[in-house]
Amino acid sequence: MSIRFEADSVGTREVPDEAYYGVQSMRAEENFTITGIGMNPVFLKNLALIKKAAAITNCLAGDLDQICAKAIIKASNEVAAGKFAKEFIVDAVQGGAGTSANMNMNEVIANRANEILGGEKGAYDHVHPNDHVNMSQSTNDVVPTAGKMTVIDLMQPLLDELARLESELYAKSIEFDDVIKMGRTQLQDAVPMRLGQTFHAYAVMVGRDKKRLAHTIKEMYAVNLGGTAIGSSINASQVYLDTVVPCLARISGMPLTQADDLFDATENLDGFVAVSGALKTCAVNLSKMCNDLRLLSSGPKTGLAEIALPAKQNGSSIMPGKVNPVIPEVVTQVAFLVIGHDTTITMAAEAGQLELNAFEPVLFYNLFESITTLKGAVKTLIDNCIVGIVANRERSRDLLEQSVGIITALNPYIGYKKAAEIAKQAIKQNKSVREIVLAKKLLSAKELDQILDPYALTGSHSVPSMLSIHPTFQEVSKHS
Amino acid sequence: MSIRFEADSVGTREVPDEAYYGVQSMRAEENFTITGIGMNPVFLKNLALIKKAAAITNCLAGDLDQICAKAIIKASNEVAAGKFAKEFIVDAVQGGAGTSANMNMNEVIANRANEILGGEKGAYDHVHPNDHVNMSQSTNDVVPTAGKMTVIDLMQPLLDELARLESELYAKSIEFDDVIKMGRTQLQDAVPMRLGQTFHAYAVMVGRDKKRLAHTIKEMYAVNLGGTAIGSSINASQVYLDTVVPCLARISGMPLTQADDLFDATENLDGFVAVSGALKTCAVNLSKMCNDLRLLSSGPKTGLAEIALPAKQNGSSIMPGKVNPVIPEVVTQVAFLVIGHDTTITMAAEAGQLELNAFEPVLFYNLFESITTLKGAVKTLIDNCIVGIVANRERSRDLLEQSVGIITALNPYIGYKKAAEIAKQAIKQNKSVREIVLAKKLLSAKELDQILDPYALTGSHSVPSMLSIHPTFQEVSKHS
Amino acid sequence: MSIRFEADSVGTREVPDEAYYGVQSMRAEENFTITGIGMNPVFLKNLALIKKAAAITNCLAGDLDQICAKAIIKASNEVAAGKFAKEFIVDAVQGGAGTSANMNMNEVIANRANEILGGEKGAYDHVHPNDHVNMSQSTNDVVPTAGKMTVIDLMQPLLDELARLESELYAKSIEFDDVIKMGRTQLQDAVPMRLGQTFHAYAVMVGRDKKRLAHTIKEMYAVNLGGTAIGSSINASQVYLDTVVPCLARISGMPLTQADDLFDATENLDGFVAVSGALKTCAVNLSKMCNDLRLLSSGPKTGLAEIALPAKQNGSSIMPGKVNPVIPEVVTQVAFLVIGHDTTITMAAEAGQLELNAFEPVLFYNLFESITTLKGAVKTLIDNCIVGIVANRERSRDLLEQSVGIITALNPYIGYKKAAEIAKQAIKQNKSVREIVLAKKLLSAKELDQILDPYALTGSHSVPSMLSIHPTFQEVSKHS
Amino acid sequence: MSIRFEADSVGTREVPDEAYYGVQSMRAEENFTITGIGMNPVFLKNLALIKKAAAITNCLAGDLDQICAKAIIKASNEVAAGKFAKEFIVDAVQGGAGTSANMNMNEVIANRANEILGGEKGAYDHVHPNDHVNMSQSTNDVVPTAGKMTVIDLMQPLLDELARLESELYAKSIEFDDVIKMGRTQLQDAVPMRLGQTFHAYAVMVGRDKKRLAHTIKEMYAVNLGGTAIGSSINASQVYLDTVVPCLARISGMPLTQADDLFDATENLDGFVAVSGALKTCAVNLSKMCNDLRLLSSGPKTGLAEIALPAKQNGSSIMPGKVNPVIPEVVTQVAFLVIGHDTTITMAAEAGQLELNAFEPVLFYNLFESITTLKGAVKTLIDNCIVGIVANRERSRDLLEQSVGIITALNPYIGYKKAAEIAKQAIKQNKSVREIVLAKKLLSAKELDQILDPYALTGSHSVPSMLSIHPTFQEVSKHS
Repeated sequence: MSIRFEADSVGTREVPDEAYYGVQSMRAEENFTITGIGMNPVFLKNLALIKKAAAITNCLAGDLDQICAKAIIKASNEVAAGKFAKEFIVDAVQGGAGTSANMNMNEVIANRANEILGGEKGAYDHVHPNDHVNMSQSTNDVVPTAGKMTVIDLMQPLLDELARLESELYAKSIEFDDVIKMGRTQLQDAVPMRLGQTFHAYAVMVGRDKKRLAHTIKEMYAVNLGGTAIGSSINASQVYLDTVVPCLARISGMPLTQADDLFDATENLDGFVAVSGALKTCAVNLSKMCNDLRLLSSGPKTGLAEIALPAKQNGSSIMPGKVNPVIPEVVTQVAFLVIGHDTTITMAAEAGQLELNAFEPVLFYNLFESITTLKGAVKTLIDNCIVGIVANRERSRDLLEQSVGIITALNPYIGYKKAAEIAKQAIKQNKSVREIVLAKKLLSAKELDQILDPYALTGSHSVPSMLSIHPTFQEVSKHS
Repeated sequence: MSIRFEADSVGTREVPDEAYYGVQSMRAEENFTITGIGMNPVFLKNLALIKKAAAITNCLAGDLDQICAKAIIKASNEVAAGKFAKEFIVDAVQGGAGTSANMNMNEVIANRANEILGGEKGAYDHVHPNDHVNMSQSTNDVVPTAGKMTVIDLMQPLLDELARLESELYAKSIEFDDVIKMGRTQLQDAVPMRLGQTFHAYAVMVGRDKKRLAHTIKEMYAVNLGGTAIGSSINASQVYLDTVVPCLARISGMPLTQADDLFDATENLDGFVAVSGALKTCAVNLSKMCNDLRLLSSGPKTGLAEIALPAKQNGSSIMPGKVNPVIPEVVTQVAFLVIGHDTTITMAAEAGQLELNAFEPVLFYNLFESITTLKGAVKTLIDNCIVGIVANRERSRDLLEQSVGIITALNPYIGYKKAAEIAKQAIKQNKSVREIVLAKKLLSAKELDQILDPYALTGSHSVPSMLSIHPTFQEVSKHS
Repeated sequence: MSIRFEADSVGTREVPDEAYYGVQSMRAEENFTITGIGMNPVFLKNLALIKKAAAITNCLAGDLDQICAKAIIKASNEVAAGKFAKEFIVDAVQGGAGTSANMNMNEVIANRANEILGGEKGAYDHVHPNDHVNMSQSTNDVVPTAGKMTVIDLMQPLLDELARLESELYAKSIEFDDVIKMGRTQLQDAVPMRLGQTFHAYAVMVGRDKKRLAHTIKEMYAVNLGGTAIGSSINASQVYLDTVVPCLARISGMPLTQADDLFDATENLDGFVAVSGALKTCAVNLSKMCNDLRLLSSGPKTGLAEIALPAKQNGSSIMPGKVNPVIPEVVTQVAFLVIGHDTTITMAAEAGQLELNAFEPVLFYNLFESITTLKGAVKTLIDNCIVGIVANRERSRDLLEQSVGIITALNPYIGYKKAAEIAKQAIKQNKSVREIVLAKKLLSAKELDQILDPYALTGSHSVPSMLSIHPTFQEVSKHS
Repeated sequence: MSIRFEADSVGTREVPDEAYYGVQSMRAEENFTITGIGMNPVFLKNLALIKKAAAITNCLAGDLDQICAKAIIKASNEVAAGKFAKEFIVDAVQGGAGTSANMNMNEVIANRANEILGGEKGAYDHVHPNDHVNMSQSTNDVVPTAGKMTVIDLMQPLLDELARLESELYAKSIEFDDVIKMGRTQLQDAVPMRLGQTFHAYAVMVGRDKKRLAHTIKEMYAVNLGGTAIGSSINASQVYLDTVVPCLARISGMPLTQADDLFDATENLDGFVAVSGALKTCAVNLSKMCNDLRLLSSGPKTGLAEIALPAKQNGSSIMPGKVNPVIPEVVTQVAFLVIGHDTTITMAAEAGQLELNAFEPVLFYNLFESITTLKGAVKTLIDNCIVGIVANRERSRDLLEQSVGIITALNPYIGYKKAAEIAKQAIKQNKSVREIVLAKKLLSAKELDQILDPYALTGSHSVPSMLSIHPTFQEVSKHS
């Protein structure tokens, strides 16, 4: 392997001659052997777009000559297209608020731009990583900006999957609208309901998560690009400061704006905490739903077995014929991951000091994984579980009919205390509520037919008013 | 102590004769010796308001006679006014999704209403806890509704304090606008800034938290009252279902609406998770700011000492004259509390199963404490810290002038590499940047005066464009 | 109310004349309106014991005269006995690493000691809070020491309850040893087991927690008393330094030792994090077991219903006869509390800076609550749940017999693939495994009787070796 | 690409002909597109060792013929050596408690063993994934066992690095033993100390973490191998049950034992929670130390600057000459990662149900990453930071001499109150404590020399007893 030499403030060092990265990337690679996982490619794409926007704007401001600018732009485009993926050698988790990420990018673009302009790698004579590629910028404004753009990029597929999930859940709620079953509270038999209502509730819940995430993503639009080192825009010209964010918005197609207070936008990472919080809330809901699906499909013979999930793989290496709820299980695991990541993200944000938060890399590492794993989980949940769920209609009705949960409907007619006695007796003697009520002559068979119609009990409008006096609202409340 | 006897499904039990609570409250008290802390009084007030609204609405629907309704309403008003505070004997953390909280309320109101109607405590002959006080209701709709109302109640004082904090921070940002100081990134000398900018950034940050919390509180408006046991509204009349939430909104003065899907609103607690998430985000920001205040006021002789916090108490039991940043410290402690509570709240919400979440009591216990302690923390932060902060102007300027951080401003003129060499030399030889640049004849004294004017460096518009070519945006970008 | 005046570094202030606390306590009360909850009484007791030990030791060292020492000792004894509980007016969560807690104690003891010696409250002429009560001490050594002693005190009742729980679970494992039931993995029917094995596993698990906590408590034995402000023992005499911890050990009956490195023991709170971690691990196990109990007792008609939990209170305000698993539910809620507290404790410990951790108060607040609520939870779990659990023997056997889970036992005889086909067929055609195997003439009735004996299947030794070749271990492994 | 066909319970599916994995691995790959990260290679190695041990033991038991056993053993050895790394195609986070991991392993070994025996891939005629490779096993015992072995494997390098860190910290404590500096509590000037004491405290702290982790790793020794599906050892012969763990212990060189209660060991994951808790405690300590290092090295001109960290890379892309504490920063980030992972691991363990915990994959994913990233962080901390730390001796002494912190040493001579007044005056008038005390004639110059000798103040034995009376311990305490 042929080598070249590059120098930085630490000293001179060998660099592989074919490498587009330079000495600073290598130092960082050596300093940070942490996760073994590189930086997110979408993050790198967005960092390259920022470099492009900066080059355009610096040129426009008259601070960067056109030849140099064009080479940087071309190199940035190539990097953004993923052409130099292997040149990004720094670990995702790194010290220094992303300086190494930024310098890795500056070096790759500088070397490629030099090459475009006929120069040699490592010479940086036409294009310098700091003076040209990083012109008017600081790690402290480009890295948070690239982070926000990456969240925006990654979030859309998640929102799309959530919309698809919502829609499939509504479809199931219609499909299962006539499936009568027992509702359960605290895992104990409660009162009748329809399986369609179960899925309708999930659909509404997912819709709320979708809306919440869509609202929270707006926190990512205001970026601190142009603030440079600490928000004071030192080394950025007025033209650059005014133009770079609109330019980046145009290039990226994202509705980015420049933050009103660039100091605040540089040092505070609460926007990311808010996004993680919304992801976590979504994770909680998804996990709750998946836990329900596992409960409802438990069995096939010794569980609730009111629904069956589609079999997507052999369930067991030892137990033949076993079908396991592997898809809901993986969703819940991802939920736990997202919840744990939220703790990390919260701590990273809290640890910011004075004009900068130096803990962005781990925040990004986890936040990006939260979004992408959640998206993967929702996708497999839809395709490999929700759409294939089948209702066990007879089983559901049988269970309902065995239960005494319908007793609640008798409260308005016989009172809670008497109803409780009947419920106890029914369970003890293994008799039906109906049987006992008739034996005790508390209500007639006809009345019971009307009151205990299970389908009617699942709607909202089950109890006709029994008394004829209708005092007006005013009359009652004025005496209180 | 004279006693009476009451029976429930477990059996008959002695109850102190003067008690307004009954046998079910006593069972719960015995079953749940957990925190030793009772239920939140604001929660109890809201639960009483719900009982009142239900009585009015049931009467309106013709299901509850006027005499009984009026007694319940009167009793509810008394409870809401805090008159029977000692009768609520159940621990804040209790099993059963709040059934014990609800029954404690039902029993107290029933006994008081009986008393009003001339009956004896424990007889429940005029007014029965379940059949009348709890008419058309279930723990599963009244408890979450009271929880949401309590969050709304408790949040307003926090929002008020945050608004006050924001305002005082803006005031400080004006007061300190002329205080030149060194900005620091990663705790290392960076570039100059003004102390006013520090406080302006805090003010903007707090404003964002305020806005975020104000938005999130809307999640609390849609309640499941009327859904009864599982959301199917079993045992609630159509009139009641249609009227109870508007009635409660009128009584409470809160913009409550009935949730569109009552099953969803009964079983999913994500709204509370979202509120906790926003509180946590606020806590992160407050803690970061307070950590900064402690750093900036560190000293008095061996720290940064750029500001002084007001002395609010002796700092040490052993070290005379020591003034400690106790107020920011307590804010950070509350932040940790809120962050930990967010984990508990998240887990409680995730643990919901099927038609109910049985873990609301601990969720409420922590969520209420998050809001009230955060409010207390912000209040003391304003009154006992922020308003009394003093800038050490001379110290700040002295530190700035000793530092080499202004070197960054020379990048556009001499390049990053040469600037780095000068910076190194300055620190090593303990010379000023200015001195070295002049000695090396890189820039003239006049140029340096202009470039290194510290005040100018802190604004946004520090670098005049140096090149005259101004290619249009289109020209540059079309080649890329 | 008559008043007196006291002065501190902030200025002069009115103090109620009957108060034993002084001006510094009042400042702290005003500065910290946070939780509304006072300091833990056991913590106050231990702080008083430390004051007593210090007075004895200072007297022994010749630094405190006997008259003064005796008054302090008497006052400390009274405080330790809880006599002045209302005089401790500072919030549990306070800034300043516990300085306010320490000064509240110093003031109360000083005023009481003065009173004993015939002086007036507030005069501090015979006994001064700092110079005498706090002699040779600093908040920074007495507060962590009192914290550790409090953990030791609170832990013992928890360990006792865990031992009792372990024992009751073993009792249940014997009681239920003959109850055949279906084992479930991933909530799907797996293979047969006995209910006694379920409870045996819980007992072993709880025993492990007990052992883990008993081991971790040893982290509390090494205290930093004598280190004073930062660990350098400034203002402590050699005699005091050598004697105070043995003296405190004797007074308290705890096996306390002085930490080897007093700087380390002053600034690092990892011992508390370790204790919280062990509590959290215990909470995880208890919650898992309680979740199981809720699953196994789900029903009574539409759930698993293999066991019945004792009914300890009416389950529902609306659903008559409903019995809810309120005890396991409250245990799980406490588990969530302990887990959330662990996050707070972790963050508080991580936030220490240089020679001190200023965030002890919130750490103690949560750690003490973790232990006491866990103890309360375990106690009610034993008394109100475990001991009263009843097995539904017939139901358990019926479910097992309906299931196809016994198919696994046929693997060694007919292979996984064929077994899977039979399992599928059995579920589809609602036939028993036995029926199909016989119809297909795969095994004889006699063979099946032997292989499928459910009781035999639950033991460890179910499959007799089918092949006669018995190569020795060496023979096989040498070729590999 | 040539293909073959394989069938499972879902149906028939194309498999690439060259693949050693089979249809079940492919289903899993499709079902779980989650993290994009494969299973940990050390975990795969250990799973292969388990397959080898099982084959040996089954052969020994007479249940597996020697030819088949030898092929499995050979194939397992190859897999364990990493030869088939690319054949493991299932995502690290997967549903099903690791069934897919186990089946991926079973298929690869089966196909390779078939190949060894002259068969074709996919035919499984000589060696079947379930009947032979998985003989006497279940996912539910092999996966937790492999997980524990992996923790043992990964932990040793971390323990080694911690030992090295401890040792280097002790070296620094000796190197810096004579560096006098100001100690700080709550970031405020406290009392003098020596820099060596700072590093000694860190060394002791790290030693404690090392010991804690070494103790906790013992939780990993008891494995559930032999318990098969749920702990009842169904389908495992007595010979296998008795022999497989000793065999695995011998093969792996790990001190593994068979758990006493195999049900417990199958369903409860608290051992992993305990390990994660100890890792988290270590992370807290490391982060606290690294935060200190960043504080102490803050500057170079406007911070504390008592130490200098070695420059390992350019600190900033914009600020020339800036050296940032990137190594401590990355350690703190890893600490946040480990703390967040602990939340995930805790939730995963809590979510276990009945006879199995289905959430092991995410637990392993995070636990393995916690250990490896912590190890990487400690390694770079030693090599790139600790060993190169330099003390700024003069700066440290200058700061100390400017401060009034030595005032504390005068307490025993002039009392706390007078000392406080002098401290206040010193700061206000910018005079030294010495100056004022002399001016006030409170102590002579000679006395001051003795009392205020900074070096003496940093030891433990600074205050000679001033009073001559030495009452015995008994005398004093008997009156109390």
